[in-house]
Amino acid sequence: MNPAAVLRLIGLILLMLGASMLLSVIVALYYSDGDAYSLLLSALIIMAVGTVSALIFRNAADLSARDGFSVVTFGWLFMSLAGALPFLISDSIPSVTDAFFESASGFTTTGASILTNIEALPHGILFWRSFTHWIGGMGIIVFSIAILPFLGVGGMQMFKAESPGPTADKLTPRIRNTAEILWGVYVLLTLLEIILLRVGGMRWFDSTCHAFGTMATGGFSTKNASIGYYQSPYIHYVITFFMFVAGASFTLHYHALRGNLRKYWQSPEFKFFSVVIGAGILIVTAERLVANQPIELAFRQAAFQVVSITTTTGYATSNFEEWRFVAQVLLVGMMLMGGMAGSTGGGIKAVRVQILLKQARMELHKIIHPNTIYPIRLGRKVLQGDIVQNVLAFFLLYALLVLLGTMVMALLGLDPVSAMTSTIACLSNIGPGLGDVGPADNYSSIPLFGKWVLAVLMIVGRLEIFTVLVLTTRTYWTR
Amino acid sequence: MNPAAVLRLIGLILLMLGASMLLSVIVALYYSDGDAYSLLLSALIIMAVGTVSALIFRNAADLSARDGFSVVTFGWLFMSLAGALPFLISDSIPSVTDAFFESASGFTTTGASILTNIEALPHGILFWRSFTHWIGGMGIIVFSIAILPFLGVGGMQMFKAESPGPTADKLTPRIRNTAEILWGVYVLLTLLEIILLRVGGMRWFDSTCHAFGTMATGGFSTKNASIGYYQSPYIHYVITFFMFVAGASFTLHYHALRGNLRKYWQSPEFKFFSVVIGAGILIVTAERLVANQPIELAFRQAAFQVVSITTTTGYATSNFEEWRFVAQVLLVGMMLMGGMAGSTGGGIKAVRVQILLKQARMELHKIIHPNTIYPIRLGRKVLQGDIVQNVLAFFLLYALLVLLGTMVMALLGLDPVSAMTSTIACLSNIGPGLGDVGPADNYSSIPLFGKWVLAVLMIVGRLEIFTVLVLTTRTYWTR
Repeated sequence: MNPAAVLRLIGLILLMLGASMLLSVIVALYYSDGDAYSLLLSALIIMAVGTVSALIFRNAADLSARDGFSVVTFGWLFMSLAGALPFLISDSIPSVTDAFFESASGFTTTGASILTNIEALPHGILFWRSFTHWIGGMGIIVFSIAILPFLGVGGMQMFKAESPGPTADKLTPRIRNTAEILWGVYVLLTLLEIILLRVGGMRWFDSTCHAFGTMATGGFSTKNASIGYYQSPYIHYVITFFMFVAGASFTLHYHALRGNLRKYWQSPEFKFFSVVIGAGILIVTAERLVANQPIELAFRQAAFQVVSITTTTGYATSNFEEWRFVAQVLLVGMMLMGGMAGSTGGGIKAVRVQILLKQARMELHKIIHPNTIYPIRLGRKVLQGDIVQNVLAFFLLYALLVLLGTMVMALLGLDPVSAMTSTIACLSNIGPGLGDVGPADNYSSIPLFGKWVLAVLMIVGRLEIFTVLVLTTRTYWTR
Repeated sequence: MNPAAVLRLIGLILLMLGASMLLSVIVALYYSDGDAYSLLLSALIIMAVGTVSALIFRNAADLSARDGFSVVTFGWLFMSLAGALPFLISDSIPSVTDAFFESASGFTTTGASILTNIEALPHGILFWRSFTHWIGGMGIIVFSIAILPFLGVGGMQMFKAESPGPTADKLTPRIRNTAEILWGVYVLLTLLEIILLRVGGMRWFDSTCHAFGTMATGGFSTKNASIGYYQSPYIHYVITFFMFVAGASFTLHYHALRGNLRKYWQSPEFKFFSVVIGAGILIVTAERLVANQPIELAFRQAAFQVVSITTTTGYATSNFEEWRFVAQVLLVGMMLMGGMAGSTGGGIKAVRVQILLKQARMELHKIIHPNTIYPIRLGRKVLQGDIVQNVLAFFLLYALLVLLGTMVMALLGLDPVSAMTSTIACLSNIGPGLGDVGPADNYSSIPLFGKWVLAVLMIVGRLEIFTVLVLTTRTYWTR
């Protein structure tokens, strides 16, 4: 570990974060509902802290590969702390705990909110809230495609060769190049969604904020009723489409934009992801039909909610807690899977679920023929044993965290369903769960300590668990 | 697969099962409440079927190792079917589904019941109901200590060297010898508990039935209020002690009875099991004290319920659904672990949980030093990679079955908590869950199809998942 180099880089990140906040200042000035001053002050403080940190440690040595774990973990933590400043200074969220929760929920693209009346907030603050999603999404795309495969975390090393850009020996120029390409894709898709939503009659302000929330699979809305505020089927379908896109791999989108659409169906993970979502939509549509909904509405509600939950976005057009238990349990099951690797979606990830299912099947065969080797294939690729092992370990840590989180939340007085689904919804960066944290409720009623626990779980889950937990081992801190 | 040899052995098993039913006939005659005829008729039918099957296939070839999977799976299935006969013929349980559910629950030592008024049943039938536990327990001890390690299932091969008896090259004489030794231990402990309960004022009939239920970690009681019927702290403590004993490895008890008590503390699994139970009792005692219970009662309730749930017995002295959520969630967590390998307890098993935790810790170290090999140790033993792999696979299949079972139960209309805990309680062979299947309720209200699903889950869980699932692969049925 090289703390000086880590702090220099985090200083630079904060400097950029502060600068990006100036966009919210402009929005605030345009709508002039009095929050421009708070945003400007926050931006200046963050930029000052960032500059000081970058200057003090300007002579630090280069970053080592191992420092990557510290950079992302503390990076997300400090961004969340900094992002809470405007909420506090503008008095929009007066409690430190709540402001940090909301900010961490934004940067981790979770979308869990403690706000009870979103529409009462000034425009600049609302814009900043949605913008934290968008920045978080940018961060996570680079993290998952350009950094994670090289850290050897949770089996993601199988994607080493797949990031776009030149195959350089040095990691840093490669990361920069990959980042530039992918951010281009991300910006383009966001602009497209903004325009399509505007065409559907949404105001520019709302279409921008909702596009931020969609492309980051975040889920913060500018309306108390989430997307349910809008009656237009067109808007529902547009958002459903872009949620699906955001939950799929950005490497694939990059190839598609270059004209190579075949890449989608050559990806076994994309096929699996689509089939699971398709099956989920079918089942929930059936449930909606049994509940006497007209067929178009049944399909639209089912598609929207299944895609929203599976991609870990968390937008809602209806209160699915009023649906039959089977639909609720199915949605919780879909939460566990989450998006594709290399998307902005959270959860265990489609490719890991796919590998786990193949592994389970293989183990049954191995019992009969213990000495035969059954390779696990993904498309044409044969997976190495250590990748499978890493995926199993990821699943194990995920399950342990769900168990532990559920117990802590139950200790704080939450009923079993709320305790478990709030843990899963935060660890998988979804947003709404069931019970006290259902789509019609929010996280304001969670006890103080529980909000900190859930905020930490968001960061742990967003950084693929290992990245954060590795910092708790003694091995990490010794040479 | 050699179906003839499998059917011959199952014929012999049924013959013995029918013969053992004659004990219930004697009990029925002694109390003469009219059920002796039904029991006798059932015994004769079962013995006749068994004899015919054994005779038809008397010239079958020897069993191969692979046939072991069929013998135990179909063995437990046919025993459950046969054991349902007395319930049906005596009209104690008129529905075929319910009778099968109760019988499967007995032989798998689950203890989940569909009976709403247990005390209304005649003595012979009640005796038979508890006796199915005891037979099931006998079967499971031999299965888990003498058979399972040689089938290479779920990592249990690490216990290959640990079964008592001579180290023979041939499996069959070795199994027979091990079985005789362990059954001796089982019978001795059961007799001891019967006497100790009788000393505490329980009638012979009830003390025998409860000893059956305890030593098999079953949970069927002769009272509607389960052990809560008895006010005596002495009885609660005696049953708590024997539940703990039944949840611990019978190989260790064998050594203890030969004077080698040190073996307990030389076993890393026993230490882990005891520490987890101790911690669980502490936490729940604290919860009971906060709920204003006097200290002795708080400790007694906590100890009884934690031991009952963790060892997967399922007896209750109090309705823990009225306890704080943290105690309920903790108990569900303890359900997942279950007893020790080589005990009559179900669940994932203490040793597997121990290995999973060590593996999770190891994987974190491996991220920092990917090329270093970190062996996983259990006491002085270094575990081979394939054992760890098998344990991970077991955990994976367990989790998949919980997810699948929960979805099916939710589809049938159960609320999420009831759906999930009924699945866990049956798959782990515990008995009571939360919600509709809580300690103060029973399984009578579960829809028909759900009862069959849960009964199958009981058998799948009892036979360590792999044993049954392997029969669903094509590989098993081809040479």
